Amino acid sequence: MTTHREFQFAKVPSGMPTEDCFKLVEAAIPQAGEGEVLVKTHFLSIDPYMRRAMSGSKAYGQMRPGSVMIGRGTGIVIESRHANFKEGDAVQSEFGWREHVVLKGDGLRKLVSDLQPLSLSVGVLGQSAATAWVGLHDVGDIQEGLTVVVSAAAGAVGSAVGQIARIKGCRVVGIAGGPAKCRHVIDDLGFDDCIDYKVGNLSQALGEAVPEGIDIYYDNVGGETLEVALDHVNDEARVPICGQISRYNATEPAVLRNVEVLLDKGVRLQGFRIGSRLARRDEALEQLLDWWRADKLKYRETVSVGFETAPAALINMLTGGNYGKQVVQVV
Amino acid sequence: MTTHREFQFAKVPSGMPTEDCFKLVEAAIPQAGEGEVLVKTHFLSIDPYMRRAMSGSKAYGQMRPGSVMIGRGTGIVIESRHANFKEGDAVQSEFGWREHVVLKGDGLRKLVSDLQPLSLSVGVLGQSAATAWVGLHDVGDIQEGLTVVVSAAAGAVGSAVGQIARIKGCRVVGIAGGPAKCRHVIDDLGFDDCIDYKVGNLSQALGEAVPEGIDIYYDNVGGETLEVALDHVNDEARVPICGQISRYNATEPAVLRNVEVLLDKGVRLQGFRIGSRLARRDEALEQLLDWWRADKLKYRETVSVGFETAPAALINMLTGGNYGKQVVQVV
Repeated sequence: MTTHREFQFAKVPSGMPTEDCFKLVEAAIPQAGEGEVLVKTHFLSIDPYMRRAMSGSKAYGQMRPGSVMIGRGTGIVIESRHANFKEGDAVQSEFGWREHVVLKGDGLRKLVSDLQPLSLSVGVLGQSAATAWVGLHDVGDIQEGLTVVVSAAAGAVGSAVGQIARIKGCRVVGIAGGPAKCRHVIDDLGFDDCIDYKVGNLSQALGEAVPEGIDIYYDNVGGETLEVALDHVNDEARVPICGQISRYNATEPAVLRNVEVLLDKGVRLQGFRIGSRLARRDEALEQLLDWWRADKLKYRETVSVGFETAPAALINMLTGGNYGKQVVQVV
Repeated sequence: MTTHREFQFAKVPSGMPTEDCFKLVEAAIPQAGEGEVLVKTHFLSIDPYMRRAMSGSKAYGQMRPGSVMIGRGTGIVIESRHANFKEGDAVQSEFGWREHVVLKGDGLRKLVSDLQPLSLSVGVLGQSAATAWVGLHDVGDIQEGLTVVVSAAAGAVGSAVGQIARIKGCRVVGIAGGPAKCRHVIDDLGFDDCIDYKVGNLSQALGEAVPEGIDIYYDNVGGETLEVALDHVNDEARVPICGQISRYNATEPAVLRNVEVLLDKGVRLQGFRIGSRLARRDEALEQLLDWWRADKLKYRETVSVGFETAPAALINMLTGGNYGKQVVQVV
């Protein structure tokens, strides 16, 4: 076998991506040069930022039509030309949507041997949960006894936000879409409460769920949910902006209607990207692994089987079809 | 003499305040009790937040019609019943708009004897400049070599922001209204550049003035100027929101149209109030006094003479009629 499959980014979507935004191509399997390893992809990580990149956002890995789709992956070394790696080692890095990838050995992250399934390395023990940890600590200034609210609470980042905040001794209220997700968030993940934003008046529900006010609102969705949350924050509240998934398929720019609350309450509203905080990410990953080994972290994954299902998996995640981390199982 | 004059807050303005929003009344001069001092008001501090308080903002000293107008002042002790104060001492505190005030001696700030004129204690050596210092340090994380942009650059806070940033080794560009204010900001205060927002296209002018991008945008005005500044920030930029003077007389809520930049560039947008950071304010005041004694701080004041001119002075300041600190000289 000398060829494999890759997905190219075919065209910029208008609104929600469609399958014709991606093109499945046959390509030669790349060769590992000196100091490199050849890796067989086992899982692809499917994440909201990909939609931003498809719109040309430089910050999120700008692509041109014809580029291979960006994305993190995890897999097994099948040929090594680097002293630190041998066949059979599990690694995690930026792969792109391809069945095999050649990576430089220097700086490549080797996974611990007890990490199973490998997909955890892009979810609850990977970038998603590290993003939760860094946002809560470096922007949220998380402390015991605070009230934390998180949107997209059943998603890969949101589910980690809530669990980390519970471990840190906070009261945690999620916002999620639909009764099944809300039950999952409370019963499986241990949140104190969860609001179904699809039912009734969100502001009223939030007011009832957090009569003490919000100290940290961890924002994964932007838009109206952000505005409503800002109406319920306490003085000196922190709002880490991790994502704006409600906005990614919008055709008009985001608008924030209650900016005055920032001044009236001394609120800190801050976007951040894990990609510019790599030292902190590594610190987070160590902490998460410790918690996982101590059985303190639950997770759920939405696994789409087959390399060719990657576009459908991304669309599923963008429409809220996932519980926890959305991944594609390639082998 | 047993009576003096006070200004009551008479009615909530719709848009820009008018003189009938204030009521001048004759009242008994208050008596100092045990542990208190009676102070004769020399200067009243006129500040943008007063407009917020007149709209009922709790954060800024909510008033009801019939209350004495809030406001800081500076004056001389004329009767002391507290061991730490004697007749002739200069003090600065929350006075309200009144010609005499009784204050508790405990915790009252006594001014250093070389501080002349007394009005400096509410401006370049008082709350205004301390607000500049705290915003630049605690939200802006100011460092040598950064590019700082400040709006309302010729105002009491803005003129201090620029001078402090210059002292800290930053490049400083102001935004002000009209050529005379811009000249003042550059020639008298030592800013590197100043943009007249009343002429031409602000975004284009800002792009030309800061080709290297903005690291700290110190926001005193909100509204469109904030949106334009956000279009020119660098990654990880900080935006201390100190005031929103362009918004205070608005009858519709503020809207921010480019919130996505917070995520794309990891920007920190944070409101803050000096009133909730008193320890840092005191640190700032010491530093400012040192700089002033070393002749590193310039200032200009707009002095309105006569207690009865306080409403006109406030309206003047809200319409941008002031250079530097707006005060009312009472005696």
